[in-house]
Amino acid sequence: MAVSAHGDPQPPDRLRLIGEEELIDLSIGCTVLAGGGGGDPRVGLMMGLHAIRQNGPVRLIELDDLNDDDLIVPGGMIGAPTVMVEKIPNGNESRLICEVLSKRLGSPIAALMPLEMGGLNGVLPVAWSATVGLPMIDGDLMGRAFPELQMCTPHLYGIPAWPGVVVDERAQSLLLEPMDNVWFEKLARNAVSTLGGCACAGIYPMTAKVARVPLIAGTVSAAVRIGAVIRGASDDPFKALDNEVELYPLVTGKVVDVERRTAGGFVRGSAVIEGIEHDRGRLVRIEFQNENLVALEDGEALATVPDIITLLDRHTARGIVTEQIRYGQRVVIAAFKSPIQWRSPEGLAVVGPRAFGYDIDYVPVEERHARVS
Amino acid sequence: MAVSAHGDPQPPDRLRLIGEEELIDLSIGCTVLAGGGGGDPRVGLMMGLHAIRQNGPVRLIELDDLNDDDLIVPGGMIGAPTVMVEKIPNGNESRLICEVLSKRLGSPIAALMPLEMGGLNGVLPVAWSATVGLPMIDGDLMGRAFPELQMCTPHLYGIPAWPGVVVDERAQSLLLEPMDNVWFEKLARNAVSTLGGCACAGIYPMTAKVARVPLIAGTVSAAVRIGAVIRGASDDPFKALDNEVELYPLVTGKVVDVERRTAGGFVRGSAVIEGIEHDRGRLVRIEFQNENLVALEDGEALATVPDIITLLDRHTARGIVTEQIRYGQRVVIAAFKSPIQWRSPEGLAVVGPRAFGYDIDYVPVEERHARVS
Repeated sequence: MAVSAHGDPQPPDRLRLIGEEELIDLSIGCTVLAGGGGGDPRVGLMMGLHAIRQNGPVRLIELDDLNDDDLIVPGGMIGAPTVMVEKIPNGNESRLICEVLSKRLGSPIAALMPLEMGGLNGVLPVAWSATVGLPMIDGDLMGRAFPELQMCTPHLYGIPAWPGVVVDERAQSLLLEPMDNVWFEKLARNAVSTLGGCACAGIYPMTAKVARVPLIAGTVSAAVRIGAVIRGASDDPFKALDNEVELYPLVTGKVVDVERRTAGGFVRGSAVIEGIEHDRGRLVRIEFQNENLVALEDGEALATVPDIITLLDRHTARGIVTEQIRYGQRVVIAAFKSPIQWRSPEGLAVVGPRAFGYDIDYVPVEERHARVS
Repeated sequence: MAVSAHGDPQPPDRLRLIGEEELIDLSIGCTVLAGGGGGDPRVGLMMGLHAIRQNGPVRLIELDDLNDDDLIVPGGMIGAPTVMVEKIPNGNESRLICEVLSKRLGSPIAALMPLEMGGLNGVLPVAWSATVGLPMIDGDLMGRAFPELQMCTPHLYGIPAWPGVVVDERAQSLLLEPMDNVWFEKLARNAVSTLGGCACAGIYPMTAKVARVPLIAGTVSAAVRIGAVIRGASDDPFKALDNEVELYPLVTGKVVDVERRTAGGFVRGSAVIEGIEHDRGRLVRIEFQNENLVALEDGEALATVPDIITLLDRHTARGIVTEQIRYGQRVVIAAFKSPIQWRSPEGLAVVGPRAFGYDIDYVPVEERHARVS
């Protein structure tokens, strides 16, 4: 790789630059954290590598590196991940997002950040930051990926998603100023459907001071570490991964059925995994709306949102996003603990099983399952 | 009436103020010109009367009364007229429209104007002008009503509909900056569907200089005169109306069937009129998309867009909008000559029969029919 931040003089405990190597690690790590959603990272990885080669590595900063009044714009793609793999951004989306929001808010943008630790949505903000020459915050607003825009931590604290902007690859923009974040989701989702199924967005613009409360800090560098661990694991990547982030394996199996439909700006569907090896005889069903929502066995929940449910490749431990699930894949369905913010009653009201229509109580994954042995 | 501009010192050939009397006349006149669309004027009339009582009559101006750089915002409701009758604006829409557009364009708004001479959309801009204390231009961008937003004269001259804003009664706003006017229509229509079927919009913002080319001038005062003639006619309102505007009666009859559905931000459907009096034995079918598009008899077109096809009450000659057509109504289906702008090849490409999916050549109504005798 021509450009890498590896080896730069920096304290070993803090990642300060995202170069090509770190971006590759990030693309792997956030696919694990995404819970199947946030889009396949490949397009974003290509765009990010290109942007870094052109403009150099992206500075990864913390809120303390900014002044209180500095404006931060979280962003990513919204819509159906099945569409994102073939409806490619033009590369200038971040310029247009910054232009519209900075004009509307009368202030320059100081930093970008990922909306979520999704597959694509974890890496795309790196491409965006490199393109506009801004640093990126080490953190996000979900600590994983979720399908709807009110499912962001600022929503729990009454922080508005607007003024927010949706832009597409034709350089069209919609500046939305609705009455609440649920309306924001409705209007943005519908606009995205009209635009062809996915589009880019800059939402929840916040000053650094406001962002202090909702920010889930450190998730970008955590995802980079996870990616590095998976890439570097010599024998058992699952064991290595568990050393980095608590991993609760639900079942090891083969995908025997997958059903998927793209509608209304989402991909919805389910996959059935038949146990293999020590799990022979078991049958587990995953249901998803962009992200995996529940893992069910014999009608009982093995894990539910907000805990992270990810299909990991049986051999490499790399995450498989929902639009890439295919018949015959050998996988480990793994669960990870949800960020603490989502485990409160307020958090569960927004992203718990009932928020997605499941009449199931949330039970933290660590109370149901043992970690990888 | 408490406030009226009648009797104010002014040249007799130019209407300079819209007070309560003029607004009532306008509501009648533009329902005739609307071709069945633009919404039932009742809500707009109530809002306009209220605003005029609070803030005084609205100044009706011409482009020459403005400086070249003065900014004009055309506006109205968009969506399905069937919804407009029950989803009432909050009265502050024009404030929000002016605020968003004036902030975006960095210039105060000098005047408002109607987007179209629709039923509701002819009178609502009077309420808006009175509310924000701005004058209103005597003219519009259709010279009648049409269902889609690219069906405005500026579109013929490459003038963009954007930046345009859609606002609703919850004070939500969407500022749209698409790549062309057809995309504007798609995005706005979809937003309107999401907002519940109708919403208010300010679009095609133009300086007075730019507006000179596309403006269809004098249509507001013409509609006021038409309304006054209909209201004042002592015996034959059709004859009186024909003296004011060339009227081509297609058939006199009774509504024997009406089919109407509200979907995708439009009302679409048809009505069948069975001839009475001298037209006994005839059967004429009207098809509409918000506005009446074609009048058909034995599979042949009696009249088509862009000529104006309006159902007039058999006794009062008042216009009946498409969402108010009911079984048993006695009507005269009347046609009026389209504004000249729409009769060019460029105009017909946008609003001719083929633009609405009819494989019919446009024949000017005066070549098919005689005027009222």
